[in-house]
Amino acid sequence: MSTKSKGTRYERELFHMFWENGFSGVRTAGSGSTPFPAPDLLVSNSRKILAIECKAVRSNRKYFPEKEISELNEFSIKFGAEPYIAIRFDRKGWFFMHTRDLGFGKTAHFISYDLAVEKGKKFEEIIQ
Amino acid sequence: MSTKSKGTRYERELFHMFWENGFSGVRTAGSGSTPFPAPDLLVSNSRKILAIECKAVRSNRKYFPEKEISELNEFSIKFGAEPYIAIRFDRKGWFFMHTRDLGFGKTAHFISYDLAVEKGKKFEEIIQ
Repeated sequence: MSTKSKGTRYERELFHMFWENGFSGVRTAGSGSTPFPAPDLLVSNSRKILAIECKAVRSNRKYFPEKEISELNEFSIKFGAEPYIAIRFDRKGWFFMHTRDLGFGKTAHFISYDLAVEKGKKFEEIIQ
Repeated sequence: MSTKSKGTRYERELFHMFWENGFSGVRTAGSGSTPFPAPDLLVSNSRKILAIECKAVRSNRKYFPEKEISELNEFSIKFGAEPYIAIRFDRKGWFFMHTRDLGFGKTAHFISYDLAVEKGKKFEEIIQ
């Protein structure tokens, strides 16, 4: 499977995990379908609303275009959601990073595996 | 244009109207893309969260399968959203009906134009 289709499969699995744990929500069709920014997942259990961009990566570090982060933040502020990046490292599972906890290099935000371990939440924590 | 593509166009217009009035949110890809129910629109201004099924009709009465209404209600309770049907009558514009205000005939929920005028909200009211 391509990296992209694996990413889609993992994103779908994550969406199912939220539903199995008392959340409802939507998976968006992907960028390009509307002129407005939209997170990959928008889920809520009526107490906690999460706007989530999902990434499955093979390396130990992932960079994010500034636009992706600013759009996620803007969307979330208007909606009243918490902006998260869900990042899945091979064989390490998902970590949920609030956008305020991302690293910032010379020109772009990033998440490293070490930073995810330090600042990220695991699925069991994010659904609390 | 077919009735369906006109419906899609009106739904997209309505989605834009919410964004132009301080809301953010998502349009879902349509049924079939996931095994979970999802409303056509899910929008919020951080104070009011609306889960909306959209219908553009030519007649003066529209029936709804019980499953569509119960899924919208279930989704909304879990998410913490208010469940609405947005119904657009030709040359009369949009009316927003909370699912508790739908009519109920022998076997199905319905909205008539008269009922929409009596119980429905106009766009200017729903965004307050």
